[in-house]
Amino acid sequence: MSQPDPTPLPLPGSQYLAEIREQPAALRRLLEHRAEFARVAAEAAKRGPGIVRMVGHGSSDNAASFGVYAFGLLPGLTAARDSISLLVYYGAKIDLGGSVVVALSQSGRTPDVLEYVARARRGGAFTIAVTNEPDSELAHEAEAVLPLEAGAELAVAATKTYSNQLAALALLAGCLAGRCDEVAGLLGEVADKVEEQLPELERLARSISVPFSAVSRMFVIGRGPEFATAREIALKLLETCQIAAEPLTATDLAHGPVAALDPLFPVWSIASEDETLDAVVDATARARAAGATVVASGTAAEALVDAQYLVPVPKPRLALLSPLLSVVPGQLFAGAVARAKGLDPDKPRGLSKVTLAR
Amino acid sequence: MSQPDPTPLPLPGSQYLAEIREQPAALRRLLEHRAEFARVAAEAAKRGPGIVRMVGHGSSDNAASFGVYAFGLLPGLTAARDSISLLVYYGAKIDLGGSVVVALSQSGRTPDVLEYVARARRGGAFTIAVTNEPDSELAHEAEAVLPLEAGAELAVAATKTYSNQLAALALLAGCLAGRCDEVAGLLGEVADKVEEQLPELERLARSISVPFSAVSRMFVIGRGPEFATAREIALKLLETCQIAAEPLTATDLAHGPVAALDPLFPVWSIASEDETLDAVVDATARARAAGATVVASGTAAEALVDAQYLVPVPKPRLALLSPLLSVVPGQLFAGAVARAKGLDPDKPRGLSKVTLAR
Repeated sequence: MSQPDPTPLPLPGSQYLAEIREQPAALRRLLEHRAEFARVAAEAAKRGPGIVRMVGHGSSDNAASFGVYAFGLLPGLTAARDSISLLVYYGAKIDLGGSVVVALSQSGRTPDVLEYVARARRGGAFTIAVTNEPDSELAHEAEAVLPLEAGAELAVAATKTYSNQLAALALLAGCLAGRCDEVAGLLGEVADKVEEQLPELERLARSISVPFSAVSRMFVIGRGPEFATAREIALKLLETCQIAAEPLTATDLAHGPVAALDPLFPVWSIASEDETLDAVVDATARARAAGATVVASGTAAEALVDAQYLVPVPKPRLALLSPLLSVVPGQLFAGAVARAKGLDPDKPRGLSKVTLAR
Repeated sequence: MSQPDPTPLPLPGSQYLAEIREQPAALRRLLEHRAEFARVAAEAAKRGPGIVRMVGHGSSDNAASFGVYAFGLLPGLTAARDSISLLVYYGAKIDLGGSVVVALSQSGRTPDVLEYVARARRGGAFTIAVTNEPDSELAHEAEAVLPLEAGAELAVAATKTYSNQLAALALLAGCLAGRCDEVAGLLGEVADKVEEQLPELERLARSISVPFSAVSRMFVIGRGPEFATAREIALKLLETCQIAAEPLTATDLAHGPVAALDPLFPVWSIASEDETLDAVVDATARARAAGATVVASGTAAEALVDAQYLVPVPKPRLALLSPLLSVVPGQLFAGAVARAKGLDPDKPRGLSKVTLAR
């Protein structure tokens, strides 16, 4: 007798799951473009980046949270998630000369990101579009284009686009630091680690998902580069599971939100083997003391000794790159919880793939 | 027969309510210090602010969201909520020369804000402490101190400290733009408007609070300067009502979170009579289409025609200052909902006034 396929298609969420599984291949495709990253970085360096201004919405803005650390730690540049509305809606007269703009948009069609780039370019900034669509309006508006190469993403909730955005930011930052090949090599290793871990992470995510089908609220905490992961996992939970999931830095949890916790208000805590680990351990202990159920994840998940659930990920050689690994269990968990709730992660209610909202 | 006092003390939340009512007086106290703001602004201008780096946690970080617009629109400077961990935990080697640091801390004791200021000062930044405690460690660590003058704040959830932080940022930005007296005058008018509106806003907040005692999740949306208000109202709801309230920009709502809405997942929407109004009107219509109950607030609340509840605030002469008005109904609503839920807004569970969390 033949064995049944363990993940027959098309189950609800099969597209979303397929795209999560594609992440290692998508990362490797991006790395083939390292020469373009080196060239764009050289141009950016010539234009004297006083500040790197990142713009995007949703997952793209979450990736920008990671960019703050990639540019800050590799070339030592100030990078900020810039206010789009300040330039686009309010027409603020800000000196953009010497700025590098990194515009993140999967589709290359996000209206106010497009308008931001047009204005920033006129204002003297060096503008770079990072997009899956190198023929998009955004790509034409910007002076330079870096292809995301995530491939067609059909599930509404972004997964491989997000991880390729992280990789693109790390690679651009690495090239600006004169470490293009080294960072590309490290990202290649990350792709291998994601591939190795996927089956085990899928098993773990499924195994812990069922009790969360009754959950309607969560916090997701991380700090440093992992705050991007916290934001992205929270967004996946909102989109696919209709869970009111809020991302918080480990420190901000103590500044108020901890008051809202109870056993039916769990916390997904991302602990990284880096300088912020003590802060995340402290915050997680506060959450436990408030009675919250805790899922411990990240490269240092085991340091969160009091957690009820453990979803560790392997350590990359460069700690900065851990968000590429730690987002994966969150993506899988959101998909598994959605299915446990009877929802289809491929088709979140009221969303479409390209958001043209103002 | 004598009439009973309509708000006898000490009811639950009486301290919190008393401090909300003190806001006009606290604003006027701050404005008496305009000469110090002018002096510090002149010093900052001499040090050549390429970028204003704001740091703080909780409500202080929410106020910094407003600072992005105050510095961007008045003197035309780039201002960012800087990453504390990049400098403090990761020791990033970033050029801070020519930067102005604005450190926001009610107590002047927040450990990592203190450490950030020490490192930024050594790195060549001009450091300004904005604090209620001009004798605090933070005030001594910074090169310049601007007093918040909110007066003793005993309720754990900040109210008058937050509004004075907004005013301090607006006044500093105004002085940097050479408009010190004008902005101080406009802030004085805002204090008058808050005072005039308080009785009506208290009545409105109480009248709509009861149906929200069954609510456990909310979004609070705003854009531009009102994103700070969205963040601050969401934090009050988390702290005092144990509602999982998440702040979103009007545009980000459409990029995923709208999928989570339903009639028991209401949206507090802040519409301002400014260039972002259409975006907020659009986002609110999306929330209504998803079945969410909507509370319309802000200076253009009436533009949200489909809302079930209406809590408008008067327009200031300078639209930038509307967050000083629009936060007040949210503060009052959080207090009223907490009481409707049987909670004491003066004593959120598990919080203390001064947070020394890493």
